[in-house]
Amino acid sequence: MFESVELGHRLSKRQYARQLPGLRTALLQAQHALVRAPVAVIVLVAGLDGAGKGQVVNRLTEWLDPRGVDTYTFWDPSDEERERPRWWRFWRVLPAAGRIAVLFGGWYGDLLLDRVYGKIKRKTLDRELDRIVAFEQMLAAEGVVLVKLWFHLSKKGQRQRLEELERSSAVHWRMLPRDWKHYKLYKQFLRAAERIIRRTNTAACPWHLIEALDDRYRDLTAGQVVLQALEQAVSPGTRLPAQSPIAPVQLNLPEPSKRTVLDKVDLSQRLSAAQYRCALGKCQRKLNRLVWAAHDRGRSVVIVFEGWDAAGKGSSIRRLTEAMDARLYRVVPIAAPTDEEKAHHYLWRFWRHLPRAGRVTIFDRSWYGRVLVERVEGFARPDQWSRAYLEINDFEEQLVEHGIVLIKFWLHISPDEQLRRFKQRQRIPYKQHKITAEDWRNRQKWAAYQAAVNDMITRTSTAAAPWTLVPANDKKFARIQILKTVCRRLAAAL
Amino acid sequence: MFESVELGHRLSKRQYARQLPGLRTALLQAQHALVRAPVAVIVLVAGLDGAGKGQVVNRLTEWLDPRGVDTYTFWDPSDEERERPRWWRFWRVLPAAGRIAVLFGGWYGDLLLDRVYGKIKRKTLDRELDRIVAFEQMLAAEGVVLVKLWFHLSKKGQRQRLEELERSSAVHWRMLPRDWKHYKLYKQFLRAAERIIRRTNTAACPWHLIEALDDRYRDLTAGQVVLQALEQAVSPGTRLPAQSPIAPVQLNLPEPSKRTVLDKVDLSQRLSAAQYRCALGKCQRKLNRLVWAAHDRGRSVVIVFEGWDAAGKGSSIRRLTEAMDARLYRVVPIAAPTDEEKAHHYLWRFWRHLPRAGRVTIFDRSWYGRVLVERVEGFARPDQWSRAYLEINDFEEQLVEHGIVLIKFWLHISPDEQLRRFKQRQRIPYKQHKITAEDWRNRQKWAAYQAAVNDMITRTSTAAAPWTLVPANDKKFARIQILKTVCRRLAAAL
Repeated sequence: MFESVELGHRLSKRQYARQLPGLRTALLQAQHALVRAPVAVIVLVAGLDGAGKGQVVNRLTEWLDPRGVDTYTFWDPSDEERERPRWWRFWRVLPAAGRIAVLFGGWYGDLLLDRVYGKIKRKTLDRELDRIVAFEQMLAAEGVVLVKLWFHLSKKGQRQRLEELERSSAVHWRMLPRDWKHYKLYKQFLRAAERIIRRTNTAACPWHLIEALDDRYRDLTAGQVVLQALEQAVSPGTRLPAQSPIAPVQLNLPEPSKRTVLDKVDLSQRLSAAQYRCALGKCQRKLNRLVWAAHDRGRSVVIVFEGWDAAGKGSSIRRLTEAMDARLYRVVPIAAPTDEEKAHHYLWRFWRHLPRAGRVTIFDRSWYGRVLVERVEGFARPDQWSRAYLEINDFEEQLVEHGIVLIKFWLHISPDEQLRRFKQRQRIPYKQHKITAEDWRNRQKWAAYQAAVNDMITRTSTAAAPWTLVPANDKKFARIQILKTVCRRLAAAL
Repeated sequence: MFESVELGHRLSKRQYARQLPGLRTALLQAQHALVRAPVAVIVLVAGLDGAGKGQVVNRLTEWLDPRGVDTYTFWDPSDEERERPRWWRFWRVLPAAGRIAVLFGGWYGDLLLDRVYGKIKRKTLDRELDRIVAFEQMLAAEGVVLVKLWFHLSKKGQRQRLEELERSSAVHWRMLPRDWKHYKLYKQFLRAAERIIRRTNTAACPWHLIEALDDRYRDLTAGQVVLQALEQAVSPGTRLPAQSPIAPVQLNLPEPSKRTVLDKVDLSQRLSAAQYRCALGKCQRKLNRLVWAAHDRGRSVVIVFEGWDAAGKGSSIRRLTEAMDARLYRVVPIAAPTDEEKAHHYLWRFWRHLPRAGRVTIFDRSWYGRVLVERVEGFARPDQWSRAYLEINDFEEQLVEHGIVLIKFWLHISPDEQLRRFKQRQRIPYKQHKITAEDWRNRQKWAAYQAAVNDMITRTSTAAAPWTLVPANDKKFARIQILKTVCRRLAAAL
């Protein structure tokens, strides 16, 4: 595979000087056009030791307007990063639309070394690569342009470069102690690199292999690849996600008139005031102990609340938080996204809020907005929301794999009960802000929402992250069921 | 001092129920008005153990619209927090205009406990309190509304509450093991609390003492105080910072025609190409070693570049970064603030970018924009920019105290040299983006900028954070001086 880039490419000073001004001008023009295009660009720089990846990054930031470029390296993870799923640190640095992020190694960073050093098995590597492919396709589908550069050296070339570095008093300090050690492992590096590249070289996000024997050739070629990507990104014909090579997921949606999972919820269940009071105290005491126990063991908890308008999400959440130390939990209400959030992938805003080890985050509405309100209201295109089921399942899988206890509630009420509560809200002054014209509009679309909820639960209730359907016509019954579920799930996890 | 709030205030259920609906409605109205006002609100909740601070926070978030409120607690600092100056974690959570942040303890959090446990001396406490006063006045001057609530209990009251908690099977789990221990230290707590409150009870940011014997009285009073603050915040007459009780700093500005510090810079200094090449290699090698040494010892470095347009900041920065491992440094170009940054205090965007332990951050333009471009162009009012010298000195003092090596450069060129470079930039296609109509306009205001630079250097060149004036008519000379200065400062610090 690498033979095609072991051709000994070199560029004379004159050739370089002739081509550079044109490239720089074009890069700047494309970058300035990018600011107005709703596209984010990621340049991922990877490759062998001694290939001069750092120099390439320096060069790119020199040629581009630095105000629109951010460079990130992924070295030792901080404790804030270690306490979240592995991908949190990458979501943290995803660029907003109109900006360019240069990632040193990016999500490929440790994999090559870990494999060569034998820290991970081939099976683990393959699993990680599958996740990378899914992640990159998701970015591509949302219109993010990903430029993956791999800088290659033949074995001879690598020796040559390391010797040059060593000989030259001007730059020998660029060498790392491990460079020669890695040279001895050249074969192993090549084998692992080939596997990584082959498995992640997709139509949507291909690799660009660049020979790194000669600084000038390497830098200019990298610049040209980036330029091409930028120009494609800003030309409206090519950047539409609808034209991405990923086929939209085929869905067999049940007819809205059919029986849905919601019909199975027994809404007649009730609790008396006395039963409620007694159970509430008992459950809250238990929950308090369990949340502290989870804290002591560093287990994080994510609780998701979805449900009909006026189903009682807020008051249910308060019954949970009353029982928790205020230092341990955070409630994140999800309303319309901010401008900054709109400029990112829709999952970005949720990655932001993942709890540290031993803490609880409660989402009042969540990433499921994508397949509920965004689907029904047409804010997301069919290919977007239908793809979202997979994306959400993968996201939640990552949370659970990391050891997060993930609990999801759908609070179900009947249309009649909703109407009763809407009217009540209109009567009480301090509840009036909770009821808007939008709520009434949503009510008109009950059937469409019902179909969306049914799909959502069918497609995202996994063994690791099951949905709990809560009959909430009686608030007391709902609250106790929620408290009990959280306690049960926590107890099982600890 | 506390006698006035040891009156045994209680509220009957009926009184509470009568007042609550009005309060909640008013709170929501005020909060919704806040969204349109350019004011951020901070509610700081502090007080004795057993006073129910957590319950108050729960209550406030229940009464307010949770979409506009964020609650923060400051517990064990993360390593990302520990590796920055103490105040970084508070800057991190300052609310944007239109939002409310409820801070549990806030910047007072550890001080009370540390003092009672004898971990800090009275002198240290006083120094911290002075810093708090300065910080709060700075916030107030920028129009942030700070509501400081202190929940008090008499000794008898505290015992009563703890006993009640213990007796009640419903809530005894709310108790922390340390609660009784702290009760025994009541006197010490009271003495330290009194000192803290007295010294930080300023006209701009007064404390509100609230008796916490009775839950209903406590919550309702807290709600009323917050309401009053919100209403003041959104009424245009009271929220103008110009009317804040802080007198603007009196300045004796030198006449623009007078000799300035810049006149003393010898712009004729030059280096030959040979001298430059030789010195460059030597300095870069040395810098590389020193940056790694700083990394190994966990010392962070902040380098600030200011200077005339076209003085060569960008190319000087590249000579520095070429010598550093790309994983160790970050260049932060400061252009016009983003919307999110505009909604915060002007120093917020710089706190965001402070480096972790052992890393280097290079600011291409910086917080000095406040006393340069914002002053000259009138983007900041005179009271704002004249206050900024103090704020900047305090900010930099915190960096240096934390062990950050802070290096500040002013790149000086003559007006003629600037003109020559402007014209050159217009000729080279890939440099054209660097020169805008604004640059030509700024040039017209050379004298005004000169006066501003002179003031800046006079007022912010401190022993801990001195300015280095770099003669930059000859780029080669400037680059070597910068490299040498950074090496010297690093060597001295290590």
